[in-house]
Amino acid sequence: MSVSNALKQRRSVKHFDPAHKMTNEEFKHLIDHAILSPSAFNLQHWRIVRVSDPAQRQAVREAAYDQPQMTDASEVLVLCMDLKTWDKEPAQYWNHTGPEVTDFMVQSITGYYQENLQAQRDEGMRSCSILSMALMLMAQEMGYDSCPMDGFDFAKVGQIINMPQDHEICLILTIGKALQAPHPKGGQLSLDDVVLTDRF
Amino acid sequence: MSVSNALKQRRSVKHFDPAHKMTNEEFKHLIDHAILSPSAFNLQHWRIVRVSDPAQRQAVREAAYDQPQMTDASEVLVLCMDLKTWDKEPAQYWNHTGPEVTDFMVQSITGYYQENLQAQRDEGMRSCSILSMALMLMAQEMGYDSCPMDGFDFAKVGQIINMPQDHEICLILTIGKALQAPHPKGGQLSLDDVVLTDRF
Repeated sequence: MSVSNALKQRRSVKHFDPAHKMTNEEFKHLIDHAILSPSAFNLQHWRIVRVSDPAQRQAVREAAYDQPQMTDASEVLVLCMDLKTWDKEPAQYWNHTGPEVTDFMVQSITGYYQENLQAQRDEGMRSCSILSMALMLMAQEMGYDSCPMDGFDFAKVGQIINMPQDHEICLILTIGKALQAPHPKGGQLSLDDVVLTDRF
Repeated sequence: MSVSNALKQRRSVKHFDPAHKMTNEEFKHLIDHAILSPSAFNLQHWRIVRVSDPAQRQAVREAAYDQPQMTDASEVLVLCMDLKTWDKEPAQYWNHTGPEVTDFMVQSITGYYQENLQAQRDEGMRSCSILSMALMLMAQEMGYDSCPMDGFDFAKVGQIINMPQDHEICLILTIGKALQAPHPKGGQLSLDDVVLTDRF
């Protein structure tokens, strides 16, 4: 499926077929492509928690105000960010280059993130959100539908998945087979409202 | 181009052909598709500043530590978020539904963002980053290359584009024709490192 058609056909779906399962081969195909997404300094901040156990699914559903996607979707992926990738052997992300480039990159990485908690969080949000779009468009190509969700108690879901203290959740992506067509698309802002030339 | 091929072929490109220009028809095709991206509550937090004027390009380049993409790329898009979309007539995003749904959505929107500055910022980062991936993959399909950038002085670029106080920059996306093949791809974390089942 072309990128343009995937963008045109993608809609956020609320009702998934609870009987449909994604195969492990499909899941691997999905993830193998999505993790080719870019991340700043190649730090790959994303950590994907694939929630499969029915009791875990139910717990996440309760933390998400009982939204049925959390149990009915074929896949429920909690997209988390490791806020401290930059401080965990960053040279590993640049070990394919010569030592001079590696040293330069490690210095740049440390300079960018150290003592800037907001930059660490923003970066994780960027990386995981970019990854989420790769997952949504890949899902579309594979004949699936999806819904990115942030209507849940982030702290509770963090507890349910035993998330480390130095991680945060970006969003939950549900993927499955749509049971109903979604509602008509909401109003779209015009290009004049969202595109500016040179300055505001 | 298929989504999977666009993901496989996309690389962050550092050297663009400064002679190549994108036509307005191409630009419209690119943006028309990318803004079909999802955003929470359909708020479409993104505002895209298309930097075309050579003096503006040069100023952004200086604020980006003289990185040549800022003048050489065919398009330099500063992806900004309006942090206060939720407080600016939010009913306009739900005017296609009946009044009951509109009222419910406006209440939900206000409840989610009001008095939560971090949630406002996170949401803008999510929406703009998701949009950026739509732009990158569309660019790929259209025969272009791209590079998402956050190595610049955010405050300085905000001044250059006269950004309102209630906006923030997410990233700058450069799009153009690659002059050189990018460096070999950096080390990729294995699936075992990034995918967890049910919990950490």
